[in-house]
Amino acid sequence: MAKISHISPLAPFEFPKLPVVGGVEFSTVAAGIKYQDREDVTLVRLTAGTTIAGVFTKSSTRSAPVLDCQAKISQNDETGAAILVNAGNANAFTGKKGLEATDAVTSAVAACLKLPQNRVFSSSTGVIGELLPHERITSKLNDLRELLSEASIRDAAEGIRTTDTFAKGSGKTLDIAGKTVSIAGIAKGSGMIAPDMATMLVYIFTDARVEQSVLQSMLSELTALTFNCITVDSDTSTSDTLLLAATGTSDVHISDGSGPFRDALHEVMLDLAHQVVRDGEGATKFLEIKVCGARSQKDAKTHAMAIANSPLVKTAAAGEDPNWGRVVMAIGKSGAEADRDLLSIRFGDILVAENGWVSADYQEDDGVNYMKKQNLKISVDLGIGEASATVWTCDLTHGYISINADYRS
Amino acid sequence: MAKISHISPLAPFEFPKLPVVGGVEFSTVAAGIKYQDREDVTLVRLTAGTTIAGVFTKSSTRSAPVLDCQAKISQNDETGAAILVNAGNANAFTGKKGLEATDAVTSAVAACLKLPQNRVFSSSTGVIGELLPHERITSKLNDLRELLSEASIRDAAEGIRTTDTFAKGSGKTLDIAGKTVSIAGIAKGSGMIAPDMATMLVYIFTDARVEQSVLQSMLSELTALTFNCITVDSDTSTSDTLLLAATGTSDVHISDGSGPFRDALHEVMLDLAHQVVRDGEGATKFLEIKVCGARSQKDAKTHAMAIANSPLVKTAAAGEDPNWGRVVMAIGKSGAEADRDLLSIRFGDILVAENGWVSADYQEDDGVNYMKKQNLKISVDLGIGEASATVWTCDLTHGYISINADYRS
Repeated sequence: MAKISHISPLAPFEFPKLPVVGGVEFSTVAAGIKYQDREDVTLVRLTAGTTIAGVFTKSSTRSAPVLDCQAKISQNDETGAAILVNAGNANAFTGKKGLEATDAVTSAVAACLKLPQNRVFSSSTGVIGELLPHERITSKLNDLRELLSEASIRDAAEGIRTTDTFAKGSGKTLDIAGKTVSIAGIAKGSGMIAPDMATMLVYIFTDARVEQSVLQSMLSELTALTFNCITVDSDTSTSDTLLLAATGTSDVHISDGSGPFRDALHEVMLDLAHQVVRDGEGATKFLEIKVCGARSQKDAKTHAMAIANSPLVKTAAAGEDPNWGRVVMAIGKSGAEADRDLLSIRFGDILVAENGWVSADYQEDDGVNYMKKQNLKISVDLGIGEASATVWTCDLTHGYISINADYRS
Repeated sequence: MAKISHISPLAPFEFPKLPVVGGVEFSTVAAGIKYQDREDVTLVRLTAGTTIAGVFTKSSTRSAPVLDCQAKISQNDETGAAILVNAGNANAFTGKKGLEATDAVTSAVAACLKLPQNRVFSSSTGVIGELLPHERITSKLNDLRELLSEASIRDAAEGIRTTDTFAKGSGKTLDIAGKTVSIAGIAKGSGMIAPDMATMLVYIFTDARVEQSVLQSMLSELTALTFNCITVDSDTSTSDTLLLAATGTSDVHISDGSGPFRDALHEVMLDLAHQVVRDGEGATKFLEIKVCGARSQKDAKTHAMAIANSPLVKTAAAGEDPNWGRVVMAIGKSGAEADRDLLSIRFGDILVAENGWVSADYQEDDGVNYMKKQNLKISVDLGIGEASATVWTCDLTHGYISINADYRS
């Protein structure tokens, strides 16, 4: 693992400056779960009154910590809360012992921080099928508690990485009724990324005060537009977890799921989702796929995902080949409604195909030049309706094969 | 195209000796459709009384020749018939002009062979979105007619290739009521292979006498067990065509869709389907994926295809990594029913995982040694029902990326 020494060419220039979110403290330690010489266990403490919403993998073989989080997520409580994350071991497909390990970790965190156990969430990410050495985590809890600091969010972003080539963070502040509300989030993930969130862990914090039911519906709706619209390799992990915690320390009450707070949260989530794609294993191109003119939103997304997941489209992007025939192929195979003779395809602003054939104005040289860009847009207008969807992916390269043909042995 | 100079390591030792099927003649010529210095147009003439069944791509952007074949396939006729195939140009996504080109080809063949046009089928395979230079085909029809011979099936198998690294053929003879019945088939295809038959052309001939409706239902049922159970890259072509022609010259009448004739046809179709996988772009391993113990046959196939299409499972095979965790992941993401704690996984005869965790008897060395084989079997018992399904695929290697990242430019 983590033998990728270079940083993704699509990485942001630097880790962003994130606002401090009142009521959230972070700490990390090196526990030797699997990696040596790096922080691999991260603790987050959330102040009393914090509400928490969550979205999780839909995998039927989901991991023990995911099952545990799901059981706890809808329980409201006025006490504080905590999140503990380890990297290097997914505690997935570990049977009854996996549940026992999660229980051991969350009960020890509860005791250490004087919280009820049902307010301690955990995530594990890394190799599947190996028992989690939970004593290595629990023996470090006092150190973690001592190190807790509101300023340490970047350390947390580093601590949750596995094969990620860069730490991922995004934040925003906004003024509401003369007060400042902050949002800050971190994410990890690069392979096994697909709708329903793949090997991905995301933690977002805000000092707004939001009731759990409002927080949950906002999170679910925005996930459908962000993390569930990205794919790296169409594979879905057993561990995906997205937690959103609202501490309320700003004293700004968000009472419904629309307005500027939702917009800011949407921006943070979309930025983190894009960063996950930009760290896609072996990625050298960032692709935005937009399908409009569909009969339904579901059809639009089915077509967009068929294009985004097509190995032939993704290898064409890698080869800088304006191969719109493969886009036609992907639309054809998706199973959703399309009329071959009504659809049009654009690469960026270049009209490539329309009326069932190559556009009369299209010059192959224009397409070839366009494909040299690092950020590519492929747009399809189906011409049969009003619905649209946008998804994001990366290209499929030799780098992906290299990373995944010898990840574990 | 066709810049792959080596033959797939999974190719059969040699092209098989195929039986001559009475009433079927073949010829090939070099027409310079796209390739130079090779045969690229193939003609098949079928004797009067031949019945023909067909199965085609389900792509909504299917090619002009596919639309034309579909319109003609169910028309019974006592006249002879013909099939014309060109390689190098798919005549797909070519709009109205594409239909005109197909019409020009089939009407010229009809005139040349004195057949009604509704008995002339055609296929085009190669690049999408370029107009078919149909005059290059029609100007060679007299040559093709002169060259027709019952012995030339191997030339036909060569003539229909595009990126294939070897020509594909399979045949059988069987005795029925003291008479000999022959079946011989040829196929092309290596990339864009997925259920619903991908960039694949298959032509199978028999001298049995079979009514069109019986022939069609046998073909459809057996396709579900053979060509629709293979995948190379999950992509589906716009051109897939499978035609089965029964000339009746053996004077053996097959009146129902069961019995030894069906079994022999099944064997030929499965052999050809496996050969297509064995020529999968960049393939170095042949994988059989069997899922049993499912609640329904549909669930079993959904799980099997999720495993077979998973880039992470396919790269693990390429890397000879016994990474059963990725098999668990693929089952989890498939959407079909599974219980994490009841499923068991075998690599060959080696029990790798059971009861939701790695098997107590499993030794990693055994898995590592097993994965060195060229032909791999991954079996999953879901433990919740009686239904099963088997599918076939190949590994995902640097070769696939090399072939597809610069196919067209």
